[in-house]
Amino acid sequence: MHFADRLAQAVKERGTPVLVGLDPRLANLPDELRELAAADGEAAAYREFCCAVIDAVADQVAVVKPQMAFFEELGPDGLAALHAVVAYARQRDLLVILDGKRNDIGSTATAYAKAYLGASSAWQGDALTVSPYLGDDSLEPFAQEAVAQEAGVFVLVKTSNPGGKTFQDLLIDGQPLYRCVAALVEKLAAESAGECGYGAVGAVAGATWPEQLVELRQAMPHTWFLVPGFGAQGAGAVEVAGAFDEQGLGAIVNSSRGIIFAYERGPYREQFGQGRWREAIAAAARDMTAQLRQYTPAARLA
Amino acid sequence: MHFADRLAQAVKERGTPVLVGLDPRLANLPDELRELAAADGEAAAYREFCCAVIDAVADQVAVVKPQMAFFEELGPDGLAALHAVVAYARQRDLLVILDGKRNDIGSTATAYAKAYLGASSAWQGDALTVSPYLGDDSLEPFAQEAVAQEAGVFVLVKTSNPGGKTFQDLLIDGQPLYRCVAALVEKLAAESAGECGYGAVGAVAGATWPEQLVELRQAMPHTWFLVPGFGAQGAGAVEVAGAFDEQGLGAIVNSSRGIIFAYERGPYREQFGQGRWREAIAAAARDMTAQLRQYTPAARLA
Repeated sequence: MHFADRLAQAVKERGTPVLVGLDPRLANLPDELRELAAADGEAAAYREFCCAVIDAVADQVAVVKPQMAFFEELGPDGLAALHAVVAYARQRDLLVILDGKRNDIGSTATAYAKAYLGASSAWQGDALTVSPYLGDDSLEPFAQEAVAQEAGVFVLVKTSNPGGKTFQDLLIDGQPLYRCVAALVEKLAAESAGECGYGAVGAVAGATWPEQLVELRQAMPHTWFLVPGFGAQGAGAVEVAGAFDEQGLGAIVNSSRGIIFAYERGPYREQFGQGRWREAIAAAARDMTAQLRQYTPAARLA
Repeated sequence: MHFADRLAQAVKERGTPVLVGLDPRLANLPDELRELAAADGEAAAYREFCCAVIDAVADQVAVVKPQMAFFEELGPDGLAALHAVVAYARQRDLLVILDGKRNDIGSTATAYAKAYLGASSAWQGDALTVSPYLGDDSLEPFAQEAVAQEAGVFVLVKTSNPGGKTFQDLLIDGQPLYRCVAALVEKLAAESAGECGYGAVGAVAGATWPEQLVELRQAMPHTWFLVPGFGAQGAGAVEVAGAFDEQGLGAIVNSSRGIIFAYERGPYREQFGQGRWREAIAAAARDMTAQLRQYTPAARLA
């Protein structure tokens, strides 16, 4: 089944566009996992923690997104842990977007696509994030492999960080660079559209730029958005409202720290304490869905 | 010792700017290694092959560049092989540039930098290639970590593929995007300059755009260039001439397939045959140095 159709179905079934980012960091892990890290190594602790996050949210959300950098930081052991985490998420019936922001020229781009996309790839990702700087012939191999493997890619268009504007907002004939990237991504999305109308090629567009989200939603009718920047980066449910289509589809909204380290934050810390960090994660994910439903067409999913 | 100074010293000592790209591909491996792949797995064959390439060129060249995509394609086993290859290259006194074209927003960029840069990182890279689309605050963590770890980064500026022009050549106030990226990279290079005058931050600029190489050399006096596109991608020694400074420093020129799979090509196949593929690799590297010396200021290194 086409990736965009699987994504649409999963989001509708769970009734939420919440995407849980798996960004393990040693300093933020609950004490019991820091003790595990000291005994068995950080990779073992990352694996245990991410699988626990998956257990805490698997009945509520449709998608998780491991941030590859944190696993890569631990060397080969970290990547073995990542592999196990992806396998576990799939076993729990979650879609997995590998956040690696990869790309390279032609045949090397194909190697990345074959590495990460689809059930027959080494990493078994449902999707991968991809960087556009290398141009059209670097994106096409990903689009082809995504279609062939019933997987997806999300191309960086308008990133959530303040420095995203350095190059992405530069004007070309009065139009910012991110719109030029958006035009290519939308073309690839339209060419790879599934039954739901969205393509195998999607875009990363940050919640920290709400006006541009609205603009991009209009300009990219075939493009699923992966929206980072919610929560810890400052954007709320109001800011992401423009990312959705009228049915409440077309966007998945990521929160990483805000959910997985919820037990560190005021209300969750008070309610659950460190001892019940798993429950804090589940509660934070539920609360995020409720917030999104209050202000956005995501309500229509419910 | 500062990365740029180590690089300058190593290039001068070996008398060549040749950089050997380690891009293992199963289909191109010599028969004996394809048999090893069938028996012990592709990762074992990649490791064996890359270590043999290192042995074949270690007395002639200063730098090798593993292409991470091909190792990632094999999953965790591939990355364990990559780790072993990097360690072996360092043991043979080669500088190692990890070609991963990584990047992400702020704190995640820091995680990538800590993963790959310097002897105390998990991967022990001397340098890493980095993508600029995420902007200034995504490049600064790499520059900082590079200086702290006496390592380097090479930021994509003008890539060697035909599609490199898709976005990189778009005009902003009459100036192409790659020049805007080049201006930021040169600033970071100037701020991180070592005794040789070059910075810890370098640039990737393809040999397939010889006029732009000349232009960038003038615009980026503190920036080491990593120059891909020589050989299999069509550029020769004449095309890369403009990348060097007057002393023959300032650029390292990559060849991957042209060296490591030399035994497949006409003259080397005839002279060495498949049985002596190691000697074909050594000969191809020597020939590339000779070609570069014929037409470029690299002659001044000799």
